[in-house]
Amino acid sequence: MAVKIYHGDILFTPAADRMEIHENSYIIVEDGVVSQICEKIPETYNGVEIVDYGDKLIIPAFSDLHVHGAQYVQRGIGMDCLLSDWLNHYTFPQESRFQSMEYAKNCYDAFVDEMILHGTFHANVFATIHRDATNYLFDKMEEKGMYGYVGKVNMDCNSPEFLIETTEESLNETEKYLAAHEGSKKIKTILAPRFAPTCSEKLITGLGKLAEKYHCGVHTHLVESIWEAQEALKLFPGYGSDAEIYERAGLMDHGPSIFAHVIFPSEEDKRIMKKHGSISVHCPDATVNIIAGIMPLQQMASENLKIAIGSDLAGGHGLAIYRQVARAVQLSKLKEFYEPNESKTITITQAFYHATKEAGSVFGKVGSFETGYAFNALVIDNMEDPWTKITAQEKLERFCYTGDDRNIRARYIDGELLK
Amino acid sequence: MAVKIYHGDILFTPAADRMEIHENSYIIVEDGVVSQICEKIPETYNGVEIVDYGDKLIIPAFSDLHVHGAQYVQRGIGMDCLLSDWLNHYTFPQESRFQSMEYAKNCYDAFVDEMILHGTFHANVFATIHRDATNYLFDKMEEKGMYGYVGKVNMDCNSPEFLIETTEESLNETEKYLAAHEGSKKIKTILAPRFAPTCSEKLITGLGKLAEKYHCGVHTHLVESIWEAQEALKLFPGYGSDAEIYERAGLMDHGPSIFAHVIFPSEEDKRIMKKHGSISVHCPDATVNIIAGIMPLQQMASENLKIAIGSDLAGGHGLAIYRQVARAVQLSKLKEFYEPNESKTITITQAFYHATKEAGSVFGKVGSFETGYAFNALVIDNMEDPWTKITAQEKLERFCYTGDDRNIRARYIDGELLK
Repeated sequence: MAVKIYHGDILFTPAADRMEIHENSYIIVEDGVVSQICEKIPETYNGVEIVDYGDKLIIPAFSDLHVHGAQYVQRGIGMDCLLSDWLNHYTFPQESRFQSMEYAKNCYDAFVDEMILHGTFHANVFATIHRDATNYLFDKMEEKGMYGYVGKVNMDCNSPEFLIETTEESLNETEKYLAAHEGSKKIKTILAPRFAPTCSEKLITGLGKLAEKYHCGVHTHLVESIWEAQEALKLFPGYGSDAEIYERAGLMDHGPSIFAHVIFPSEEDKRIMKKHGSISVHCPDATVNIIAGIMPLQQMASENLKIAIGSDLAGGHGLAIYRQVARAVQLSKLKEFYEPNESKTITITQAFYHATKEAGSVFGKVGSFETGYAFNALVIDNMEDPWTKITAQEKLERFCYTGDDRNIRARYIDGELLK
Repeated sequence: MAVKIYHGDILFTPAADRMEIHENSYIIVEDGVVSQICEKIPETYNGVEIVDYGDKLIIPAFSDLHVHGAQYVQRGIGMDCLLSDWLNHYTFPQESRFQSMEYAKNCYDAFVDEMILHGTFHANVFATIHRDATNYLFDKMEEKGMYGYVGKVNMDCNSPEFLIETTEESLNETEKYLAAHEGSKKIKTILAPRFAPTCSEKLITGLGKLAEKYHCGVHTHLVESIWEAQEALKLFPGYGSDAEIYERAGLMDHGPSIFAHVIFPSEEDKRIMKKHGSISVHCPDATVNIIAGIMPLQQMASENLKIAIGSDLAGGHGLAIYRQVARAVQLSKLKEFYEPNESKTITITQAFYHATKEAGSVFGKVGSFETGYAFNALVIDNMEDPWTKITAQEKLERFCYTGDDRNIRARYIDGELLK
């Protein structure tokens, strides 16, 4: 058994209201999995090499539960547009270029490298409708050792002619994609209907059958704006909620159901999500850039709905999930200021929990340092001015608000140091 | 006469609704001042050395019109606190440490270096009540070639016993500070009563006399929260508005009047500010962190009130003004979403204008590249992916949303390249 020991200030959040802080401690990792944390190394580990990170922070790596890999090249531009202009002038033409494998490779290589640079080792990614390019992204994330879900996008109506499939094409291409990756380990396929307004009922029903056959979950946008919520119900008459569209098709029975934004959930949406253990993904910067409102995060969490954090590149403009942790705290303050009866302010501890342990739960045991969790970890450096002391938790808070990739001194996946 | 010519994609905002973009052009600088921009160099400049920045951006340097230099060491921590806890547990104890010159030097050295690193060459800075430390900050900014205003803070009531002056002390120390810097050039003194709730009427009146004697402007917080606006009028009975407190004392007659936040201006506040050409400073991240609401920026600008951008470190958590430009666009969207009758969404062009030309107007001719403006400039690099083209304006937008100091390839003040 391969044993390694790391020394530093170890922080993680076993619960939304609890940051565990082990200053000047050791974390013992056996075969890439956390065995224990201690202030003094037990005698049984005598002779094991210790990697000493001094008073640097050792924290769990981040999960990004909603990100459009293909929108990487449009990050931080077109932000003056309203949603429809942004989709028609930037996003749709941009996604259509993924017919070209050369273009796709350039984009996905840079995208995956930048996720890892920012300490995101677990990601749930929307690709595009193009199967070949989606396969490339899948393989790239696998090659890098990431944990993830990758979805080939489906859209068979209300879409531009240069970015649309027939229902049959969409189902056939999706099945080929799922079949090609059966039995994959850390990277898995997921179904990714863009959202109800661009998917016919026949397509959604067909995807439900594929979910059963290939044991797949679903990743889509849910009640992400007032427009989307209304449009979904108009296009799916006889359905009582946006979530019911996916539930009735059987898309929530065979794997994780991951819903982006969830800004205006009805009681029925919440009931269905709770029943299926779905996870809602808060994407703070995107929600402001594409101005849809603010998720009632604290309220939903208090009702035991699962919450994760996402970058939603390129509605969001950056891939750093630690920055979205800070932004989630900020937006919760604005939410309470403007809608005090809807949701309350959250703490940095809660935001960090959603971005690590709770988000990580869809990938297995990642996002925490409790015994049995993968040692997927970041070492954080240089968060303190040399002439004044701050606490370990303050260093973590400062990293989320002001740090960048230069402060990530080392990266570990399954106990292996990334070079 | 020293002439230099720079080639690149030159961008600046002569007006709030106009971004001038000169791609593949030359900017001719004579004795540190912009002479002209042209696509072909006039013959009269034959033989002058050309610095070729290719298709990199050349943009005006930024101005930060509201920043607490002494709060540098608390950036990005304590953000879970409410305002009163934040002041009492972080800010006030922290500011009291500026009695120690060693502490002050460490902090102000790092603070000034980091402003310059982020391309802020013009700043209006709150120091603390301590005269020696404030002198050090003044000298440091002068030594670095910055343009600026530096204020020794005044507070003689409703303040903790470890951070308070008597009225007499406060006025005496301030006069000594002003006298020591009479005739200074690029860095100037400014009066800095903290805000109405911590200043007696006698103090404010005394500062008004110093303003007249030493030809100083004023820098303070104005209607920054509902609490502050109400408290000011309670403590100054007989005054009709927060702005009147400073106007009646004669503090707005002898130099720029610079007011931070201005989130809840009354009609009377606006009338007084317009009469005196005052400038209101929008500090987006601070306004969210310390949750006070959102300035009605677009509405105020449409009423011809002057607007600048500020970092408000450490209510704000970072010194990069370019990031606050992006944040100003974001917050204007939230403002319109929640208060559609109060203010509308602004563009990146307008936000950039407030952070460069309009903010720069309090320092002289800085913040634009029109003829006669100082060549205080940044060269911005690496905002484009190698496999896909974006426009010069999109590069600037991406820099504001996602760039960092690594993208600032060169920095010029008065035509001199900073080493």
